[in-house]
Amino acid sequence: MNGRITLAHGDGGELSHRLIQEIFLTAFGSSSAPLMDASIQSMSAPRLAMTTDSFVVKPIFFPGGNIGKLSIAGTVNDLIVSGAKPLYLTCGFIIEEGFPLQDLKIIVQSMAEEAAKSQVSIIAGDTKVVERGSCDGIFINTTGIGAIYEHQHPMPDGMKEGDSVIVTGSIGDHGVAILTARNELGLRTEVLSDCASLNGMLEEALGNTKNIRIMRDPTRGGLATSLVEICEDFKVTIELDEEQIPVRPEVQGACELLGLEPIYLANEGKALIIVGKEEEAKLLEVLRRHPEGANATVIGRVTGTQKGQLQLRTVFGSSRRLNRLSGMLLPRIC
Amino acid sequence: MNGRITLAHGDGGELSHRLIQEIFLTAFGSSSAPLMDASIQSMSAPRLAMTTDSFVVKPIFFPGGNIGKLSIAGTVNDLIVSGAKPLYLTCGFIIEEGFPLQDLKIIVQSMAEEAAKSQVSIIAGDTKVVERGSCDGIFINTTGIGAIYEHQHPMPDGMKEGDSVIVTGSIGDHGVAILTARNELGLRTEVLSDCASLNGMLEEALGNTKNIRIMRDPTRGGLATSLVEICEDFKVTIELDEEQIPVRPEVQGACELLGLEPIYLANEGKALIIVGKEEEAKLLEVLRRHPEGANATVIGRVTGTQKGQLQLRTVFGSSRRLNRLSGMLLPRIC
Repeated sequence: MNGRITLAHGDGGELSHRLIQEIFLTAFGSSSAPLMDASIQSMSAPRLAMTTDSFVVKPIFFPGGNIGKLSIAGTVNDLIVSGAKPLYLTCGFIIEEGFPLQDLKIIVQSMAEEAAKSQVSIIAGDTKVVERGSCDGIFINTTGIGAIYEHQHPMPDGMKEGDSVIVTGSIGDHGVAILTARNELGLRTEVLSDCASLNGMLEEALGNTKNIRIMRDPTRGGLATSLVEICEDFKVTIELDEEQIPVRPEVQGACELLGLEPIYLANEGKALIIVGKEEEAKLLEVLRRHPEGANATVIGRVTGTQKGQLQLRTVFGSSRRLNRLSGMLLPRIC
Repeated sequence: MNGRITLAHGDGGELSHRLIQEIFLTAFGSSSAPLMDASIQSMSAPRLAMTTDSFVVKPIFFPGGNIGKLSIAGTVNDLIVSGAKPLYLTCGFIIEEGFPLQDLKIIVQSMAEEAAKSQVSIIAGDTKVVERGSCDGIFINTTGIGAIYEHQHPMPDGMKEGDSVIVTGSIGDHGVAILTARNELGLRTEVLSDCASLNGMLEEALGNTKNIRIMRDPTRGGLATSLVEICEDFKVTIELDEEQIPVRPEVQGACELLGLEPIYLANEGKALIIVGKEEEAKLLEVLRRHPEGANATVIGRVTGTQKGQLQLRTVFGSSRRLNRLSGMLLPRIC
């Protein structure tokens, strides 16, 4: 399909209908959505998780992925780290007039592939077209629902001193891949975004490990911001060991060049897991069986359950308190 | 709260956190969302409906509503016309750097009010900020889930000759209100958008009327496009009686001036219902009890169940076939 998106593709009429038939339904294969204003699905779970994310990443194609793959993996990961089996996703497109149909097709195809890999169904969608100059190419919202794993659900209130803080692999890859792809900072690296759905690995982790207290996917704001939120929300002190945090040499190098810290850079295929120390070895074994978790490692411990603080023991042996990301302008990283 | 949205409001760090606390949580009062990546809710329905919509309406404030009210009512209506009780909504904001915080607060407040009126909970959200010039002010995605009314669910396959086609009030109001508000076409009218949640009225209609075959909310593409879709999807012929279609004189006048047809203009607070003729009087009585349905009326009939065609019997007595909206450029009407 050649050509470009026109305003008429978004008016709800004939061209909208053809766009849905020829691009979206071809890729996503949904059958009920076009007949009704909402898609109807059977559910047997007593509790549901629901999450939403809009993706505005720039550029839309980057090493290791594109906005389509990212939009599926991001929402799948939000569900699985909440202890829910991802089931159904919706997607809402906002597209700029003049956007190449060929690019849309590639993006939609990536979404379909990532959805198939994650075993989720895309069951409803919406497309709006805005005039040239009113949005930057394409923005995608994905919203997902999942069924809570009732018998193996993370219990954040159970966090206690000695609990292990685990990250499933090297951090900052997505952030550096995007900054490189922007070509703005004179940065040249071979770093690929880690953009990936983690539900296969994390479902196995939940099924085979007791005492998982909490899981997070440290996206915007990075590892440090996710951990600060955990510390504040659940009033625990966590001490990170900087030396143990896996960072690729190229990511470290780019950060030094740009004055950034890898712990504040976005990740799109990493999970942060806090688990009882007694289950640490077992959890690492399960994670390392998966390519996404091959470099899973312990990076810190819960050291108190009174104050909500995140501490970093640096490679030089000193210790400093970490706060949320603040004032580092990295817009449109996801 | 004065000031404007900055890129740092969207970086996932400290300012994002404060924006969520001070604007979103204050208005929506969600408690679980900030602690987890997804919101967790109990569900007891065997079947769920799920729908998504992105709102890019221009201007964002218009006579009768704003983008916030519209984003809630639109998704609530998609659920109820699918025969589902609207329960939970998520909202995803994409905001342009420099957007006034005061405007955001008004929009979010409208969303909270409309959600309260519709008895739905906003349970999860996401905010992205893009650089100045990368989007036009604010775009909002709302995605909703609802519980299917199992015992009073519309049965489109039951449509048969003689069924009544009902619209719940005057058509084209939203379309003309937006075109007027744009100030582009030299158009001056006092028409207000009909933007409203219809779940109160339609829940009562479903509970008190048998043989409701199908319901739709004729938004983008208008009454005609919604009916063409029904005709094609379910292979029925429908004949509309132009004289019976309620159109405000001001809307009719604006359409004549601009060369538009009211049946193709967007509505945001009207439902289209097809019902067995034997239940027509009862349904009209129920609808007319509600202010949103005070002008509900029969506008046509199902005249065949073989070919999927929409016919209009004009005020002049002639008959013509209607197709989907095509080539009328009315971008960003919702």
